[in-house]
Amino acid sequence: MYEERKEIFGNVFTAGLDIKELYAPATSEARTREFWRTLSQVLTQIYNSRLSTVAIINGACPAGGCVLALCCDWRIITWNGSMGLNEVALGMRVPFYWCELMARTCGLRAAEDLLLSASMPTSTDLRSLQLVDEIVEKPEDLMPAGIERLTKWLKFPSEGYVPTKRHMRGEFAQRWRDGIEWEGQEVWKAINHPATIASLDQVMKRLSGGAKSKL
Amino acid sequence: MYEERKEIFGNVFTAGLDIKELYAPATSEARTREFWRTLSQVLTQIYNSRLSTVAIINGACPAGGCVLALCCDWRIITWNGSMGLNEVALGMRVPFYWCELMARTCGLRAAEDLLLSASMPTSTDLRSLQLVDEIVEKPEDLMPAGIERLTKWLKFPSEGYVPTKRHMRGEFAQRWRDGIEWEGQEVWKAINHPATIASLDQVMKRLSGGAKSKL
Amino acid sequence: MYEERKEIFGNVFTAGLDIKELYAPATSEARTREFWRTLSQVLTQIYNSRLSTVAIINGACPAGGCVLALCCDWRIITWNGSMGLNEVALGMRVPFYWCELMARTCGLRAAEDLLLSASMPTSTDLRSLQLVDEIVEKPEDLMPAGIERLTKWLKFPSEGYVPTKRHMRGEFAQRWRDGIEWEGQEVWKAINHPATIASLDQVMKRLSGGAKSKL
Repeated sequence: MYEERKEIFGNVFTAGLDIKELYAPATSEARTREFWRTLSQVLTQIYNSRLSTVAIINGACPAGGCVLALCCDWRIITWNGSMGLNEVALGMRVPFYWCELMARTCGLRAAEDLLLSASMPTSTDLRSLQLVDEIVEKPEDLMPAGIERLTKWLKFPSEGYVPTKRHMRGEFAQRWRDGIEWEGQEVWKAINHPATIASLDQVMKRLSGGAKSKL
Repeated sequence: MYEERKEIFGNVFTAGLDIKELYAPATSEARTREFWRTLSQVLTQIYNSRLSTVAIINGACPAGGCVLALCCDWRIITWNGSMGLNEVALGMRVPFYWCELMARTCGLRAAEDLLLSASMPTSTDLRSLQLVDEIVEKPEDLMPAGIERLTKWLKFPSEGYVPTKRHMRGEFAQRWRDGIEWEGQEVWKAINHPATIASLDQVMKRLSGGAKSKL
Repeated sequence: MYEERKEIFGNVFTAGLDIKELYAPATSEARTREFWRTLSQVLTQIYNSRLSTVAIINGACPAGGCVLALCCDWRIITWNGSMGLNEVALGMRVPFYWCELMARTCGLRAAEDLLLSASMPTSTDLRSLQLVDEIVEKPEDLMPAGIERLTKWLKFPSEGYVPTKRHMRGEFAQRWRDGIEWEGQEVWKAINHPATIASLDQVMKRLSGGAKSKL
C-alpha cells in the first residue's frame, strides 16, 4: 500500500483528508459527523498514546497530514519537505483543536501567523519553529532515523515515561475528546456553506487533471 | 491629526495613555472606571476583529502604545524603534490582561523578564522575540509594507480566515471582556495609592518641561 | 553549611531531593505526604514570592535542584553547568506541577522533548531554551552577577513590581498549592510501585560508592 501511495503522490507524506468527504454535495451531515468522530478518535489516541510515536515525513505534509504528524512525539522530515495547516488558502477554517495543537507545538504567536497566512514552511524553517525535530537528506534515511529515536526512548522504564507524557498531554487530549461532537457539528456547518462548496468545486476541478483529490 | 501628533511627539507611534487620566488627584473613581471601560472595549474589539489589522510603528512604542500594537495581527517597526510594557519602571503595575497579551505574543518566560525589568527592546530584539514581524528602514516604508501585508491576507476567502482567527483569539478576548470591570477596579485602587500618586507627581514634573504628558 | 555542601558535592548546585525520602521501603505514606507538603509549600512560596529571587548555579542542577531554580526569577549558571528534570531516566515520573513549571519557562514543545528524553542540557543550550538567563565563567562570578541583577530590580518601586509578578505567576501558584495533597498522593503511589523500588535500589547501589545519595 505504501508503494501504491508513493506511485500516486510522489514525495508526499500524506496529502490530508479526502476532499470528497468535505464536499457537502457528495456527503451528508450524518456521514460527515461520523467521519469526523472516527478521524478525531484516531488523532487523540495517537496524541495521548502511551507508546512513543515518530512521524517520518517524505516531502510535503499539508493540512490533515500535518495534524497527524503533530500528534506524534517526534517529527523527522526530508530536507525538501514542507508542512502546515494551510486550510485558510482554500477558504476553509482550521478545525478548532488543530489550532491549539499547532500552538502547543510552535507557540501561540507563530501559530497565529502560520495559520492566518496559510503557510507551508520548508524543512529548515520548520525546525526553527520546533514543528519538526530532525531533517534528513534522503527518503531512505527517514526510517533508520526514526528507529534510532525510538530506541533511545525505549531505554527508559515506562513507569516514568508514560505518566510524564500524560502530564504533558492528558489535559488537552481530554478537552479535545470532549469537543469532538461539537467540532464535527462546526465542520458540517462550515462545509455546507455555499462559499465553501464553491471554493472546493474549484479545488476539485484543479485536481481532476490526474492525481487523486486530497486535502 | 497625524501631522499634529507627529509635530508633538516626533518619532513616537503613540506614547500611551494620557497620564492625567491615571493621576488620581486629577480624576475620580467613576471617571477612571469609565475611561478603562472605553479603552478596554476598543482594545478587545481590535484584538478580536474579523478584519486584518497591521500596526505600523514609527519609533518608540511604550505602555499603552505597545498594548494597542499587540492587539493587531502584524507589527512593522522602523529600524530605530523600541516597544514594551515599561510600567514597572514608573511604579505602576502592568494591567492584568496586558500581561497575558504580552505572554501570548512572546511566550511566558520572555514576558516575565520583559515586564519585571520594564524593558523596551529595540527593533532587532523585538523581532527575535516575535514582538514585531517586520523591520523597515525609513518611516515612509511603513505604510507600503503594511498595505503589502494586508493585500496578502485579502486574497484569502473570509470563510476560512475569520473563524480561524476567532479560534486563536476568541477565548482570550472573551475572558478579557468579562474582566474589564474587575480590571478597572484594580486600576483605580492602584492609582489611588499614595506611592503611585507620588511617583506620577515626579513623572509629570519631568514631562512638564515641554512635551505633552503621556504614559 | 555552604562550605560543607561544597565539600560533599563539588560542582553541584543541588543534587535534588534526598533519594531515601523517595525509597518506599525506607519511608511511609504519612512521611512521604508530609515531605511532599513541606517541599511544595517552599517551592510555591519561592515561585510566587513578592521578593526578587536569583538562582546561582555552580555546575550540575538535576531534578529537585532544577525545579528550585525554575521557581526563582532569574538563573545564572557557570559555563560548565547543566540542568534538567531527568527523572524519566531513573524510571520516575516528573511530578505534575514540575512539568507545567518547565513548560512555562521553555515552552510546551521543548518541555515535552526535554522531559521525555530526560535531558540535562548544558549551559549554552540552556540559555537558548530560556531555561537560564546568564552564563558566567567562574564559580566566583556567580554571586556578583546575582547581586547585580537584584540591584537592577530593586530600583523599581514595589507598587508596580510586586503586582505585575503576581499577574504573571499568581494563577499557576494557586493551582499548584491547591494540588499539593493530590500530587503527594500520586508521588506515594508512584514510589510504592515495585518497578520504581527496584529502579531506586539500583540507583542507591550505584551511589553508595561514596557521595551522599540525592535525586
